[in-house]
Amino acid sequence: MNWSRGVCACRPGMINTLYLPELREMLASDNVVELREFCTALHPARTAEFMEGLEAEESWRVLQYADEDSRVQIFIYLTPERQVEICESQDRDAIARLISKLASDDRVDLMQRLSHEIQGDLLSRIPAAERREIQRLSQYPEGTAGAMMSINVVRLSESLTVREALDELSRQAEQFETIYYLYVVDAEQHLRGVVSTRQLVSAMRHPNTPMSELMETKMVTVEAMEDQEVVANRVARLDLLAIPVVDHEHHMLGIITHDDVIDVVQREASEDVQRIGAVEPLRDSYLGTHWLIMSWKRGIWLCILFFCGLLTAVALQGYGSQLAKWSWLIPFLPLIISSGGNSGSQSSTLVITALTRGHITRKDWLRVAYRELFVGGLLGLFLGTLGLIVAQLFGNSPGPLEAMVVPITLTLVVTAGTLIGSMLPLLFHRLGFDPALMSNPFVAGISDVLGIMIYMNIALLIL
Amino acid sequence: MNWSRGVCACRPGMINTLYLPELREMLASDNVVELREFCTALHPARTAEFMEGLEAEESWRVLQYADEDSRVQIFIYLTPERQVEICESQDRDAIARLISKLASDDRVDLMQRLSHEIQGDLLSRIPAAERREIQRLSQYPEGTAGAMMSINVVRLSESLTVREALDELSRQAEQFETIYYLYVVDAEQHLRGVVSTRQLVSAMRHPNTPMSELMETKMVTVEAMEDQEVVANRVARLDLLAIPVVDHEHHMLGIITHDDVIDVVQREASEDVQRIGAVEPLRDSYLGTHWLIMSWKRGIWLCILFFCGLLTAVALQGYGSQLAKWSWLIPFLPLIISSGGNSGSQSSTLVITALTRGHITRKDWLRVAYRELFVGGLLGLFLGTLGLIVAQLFGNSPGPLEAMVVPITLTLVVTAGTLIGSMLPLLFHRLGFDPALMSNPFVAGISDVLGIMIYMNIALLIL
Repeated sequence: MNWSRGVCACRPGMINTLYLPELREMLASDNVVELREFCTALHPARTAEFMEGLEAEESWRVLQYADEDSRVQIFIYLTPERQVEICESQDRDAIARLISKLASDDRVDLMQRLSHEIQGDLLSRIPAAERREIQRLSQYPEGTAGAMMSINVVRLSESLTVREALDELSRQAEQFETIYYLYVVDAEQHLRGVVSTRQLVSAMRHPNTPMSELMETKMVTVEAMEDQEVVANRVARLDLLAIPVVDHEHHMLGIITHDDVIDVVQREASEDVQRIGAVEPLRDSYLGTHWLIMSWKRGIWLCILFFCGLLTAVALQGYGSQLAKWSWLIPFLPLIISSGGNSGSQSSTLVITALTRGHITRKDWLRVAYRELFVGGLLGLFLGTLGLIVAQLFGNSPGPLEAMVVPITLTLVVTAGTLIGSMLPLLFHRLGFDPALMSNPFVAGISDVLGIMIYMNIALLIL
Repeated sequence: MNWSRGVCACRPGMINTLYLPELREMLASDNVVELREFCTALHPARTAEFMEGLEAEESWRVLQYADEDSRVQIFIYLTPERQVEICESQDRDAIARLISKLASDDRVDLMQRLSHEIQGDLLSRIPAAERREIQRLSQYPEGTAGAMMSINVVRLSESLTVREALDELSRQAEQFETIYYLYVVDAEQHLRGVVSTRQLVSAMRHPNTPMSELMETKMVTVEAMEDQEVVANRVARLDLLAIPVVDHEHHMLGIITHDDVIDVVQREASEDVQRIGAVEPLRDSYLGTHWLIMSWKRGIWLCILFFCGLLTAVALQGYGSQLAKWSWLIPFLPLIISSGGNSGSQSSTLVITALTRGHITRKDWLRVAYRELFVGGLLGLFLGTLGLIVAQLFGNSPGPLEAMVVPITLTLVVTAGTLIGSMLPLLFHRLGFDPALMSNPFVAGISDVLGIMIYMNIALLIL
């Protein structure tokens, strides 16, 4: 059977149902030859994709036809939700064997997704060395460099020569997370330098050169407790394949590789987008999230926003008599409120992305404030002019003086929205919160109420 | 002087002003020793950071103290805006020499940022081989795999042995973008397989093994015209260091490396966030964007949203007599409109992030619609209940029947907003637009007007 048919049609993360009937038939007839072929003929990520439509139990049965290496490789490309399902439902001893073969960082990620009871059960079945490693890595809080790192890293002594290093590498290449950076450590495991495999290969013509001569000491490192976003920005900025993780005494603890950094960048980006869109970030994929969790993650923010909206209702009721007198002001109400909210969410979006990318820090707040005040004022004047034209066309205001209420309000509301939208994320950042958290809802709430107050007071002043 | 002071305090992308006075003094006194030291003592990315506060002309003068290799490396870490400034203002022959030393993908990126006139002038000064390469790579439209790829890639013939491959590698390691994947091609440059340096190093004990035996033929490739987002998702999903780019006849064209993928992921994420926040994506950093460009990129969307808001004003004027009669409905107006808009932007945000990450495709639209209808209905009922309580507390509705207007409207508006918010991005995607483009503004516009219509018609029906 030609497994490569349908490979091109398949996008990562999508469920590919093309071979499900064939796979099920093979399982039913225990077709060893075809199932072995399925487990080895394709890139393990592709094999995993084809299996995504199967039930957990079926997937596990398919994996039994793979040799141990392929099984581990295919397993790690299954979706996190499926991995958990399999671990929680299948034979514990076999699962423990599988887990002890995973890379150290993948192992900890997986274990932390399991229930406490199953974690404990599996831990007791995992060999002592791996168990200690899992426990050590689990100490680092989620979101820190320590929690991301792998400890399967090549450590060499300074006195090793190029030839010895290459020999060492050729013996052990298979068991390390990456062999593309070799870390040179002293007897106390202090990180002294790094040699890239590129340098090592280039130096093959001088096989007796010691590592100490070859190694680069201008290294960039991260500390274990640093935030994963800092790690991601540093690796991205320096185009690194991996970054070493050290403690505050510069002991070598492990490394974080480029693939984990891409994952962090993607996940943090989605989380930021979702927060800005007033959704509590999803842990799993959109379709993989239970409707109850989905409703909860949206509901809490809708409620908060509802109560913000309620403030506008209170404010408007307070101005009830005024509105009854000048009823021609009412149609413009949503327009004015949304103009303030929109300019505010533009500003907060820009400030949040700039903070995430590391393009500004909260120390830049005064520069940001000046800039936003200026751009906001400009945009406000422009929208105000549009409002003037519109007020003329609508022609529902009683006189020329009255026609100025809407344009003046628009100018002020847009400027105020811009300023609020830019300063709130910086304030949240200062207070130690995620700047994307709560910003847009708060911006909307504050600028809505402010918009109504400005509108009504300008009207009072002019009329 | 100890250049490493202040390194830790510096975040990527921020302007580090710590050494500016010292640097300027060294330039003034032509302090060769210290300036050479500055150009070589640190990681080139750090050196570039310290130089960011300098003028283009000063940066260029500092770079003259670096040897050619360091100059290229420091230059590539300067911000894109600064690179362009230097290229446009400094000696053309020296710039052409620098450009011809850059990696092929960086070279094309830089050239495409320059004005046509300067591009032409520089091209004429660049050696013929590099010129042809730039021209060939420039053919691929921005945002495609072809435009991202580098052509400095190791190509080996199938008959080469491990020993020969290692020799070849050690001779040429310095000049390739990555040496961690070696691509095996036939005489017509068709891609036949890939050998990782890890495999090669492991196989050192069997030096006469031919590449054809060692190579992996289960390869994942991209075609040159595929979108950069597809490339990024594939590399991220498969944890690759690099992915080969081929044409439709499977000729090897080049590779895309992990660092370029991280850049794409970061850039696309910021762009999505900015589009969702109704800002036309910025090309440069927040502080690096001219106020005029900033005002323009925000102004166009504010205007579009303004005209959407105008529709609400028109609608409200249409219902003017009704509103005058039932003035107690007015205070709830912004609350109802914003509830619909908020639930809509939640849905569009979720659908956009799921599309970007490849978790859904537009073929899933029916599943998404069912899901959103269900979750939206649930959220709507919940907000409706809140609305019922609020209407009782406010106590401004004339009777028990009238008190039902706000809750019923809220339920319907939230459900409608959810459905619109989820379907519009899929529709845009279907029409070939970026799903993040225009979605939130359109969602807001449509759900605002719809909200008013639902509100008024429910009121008519009940009262």
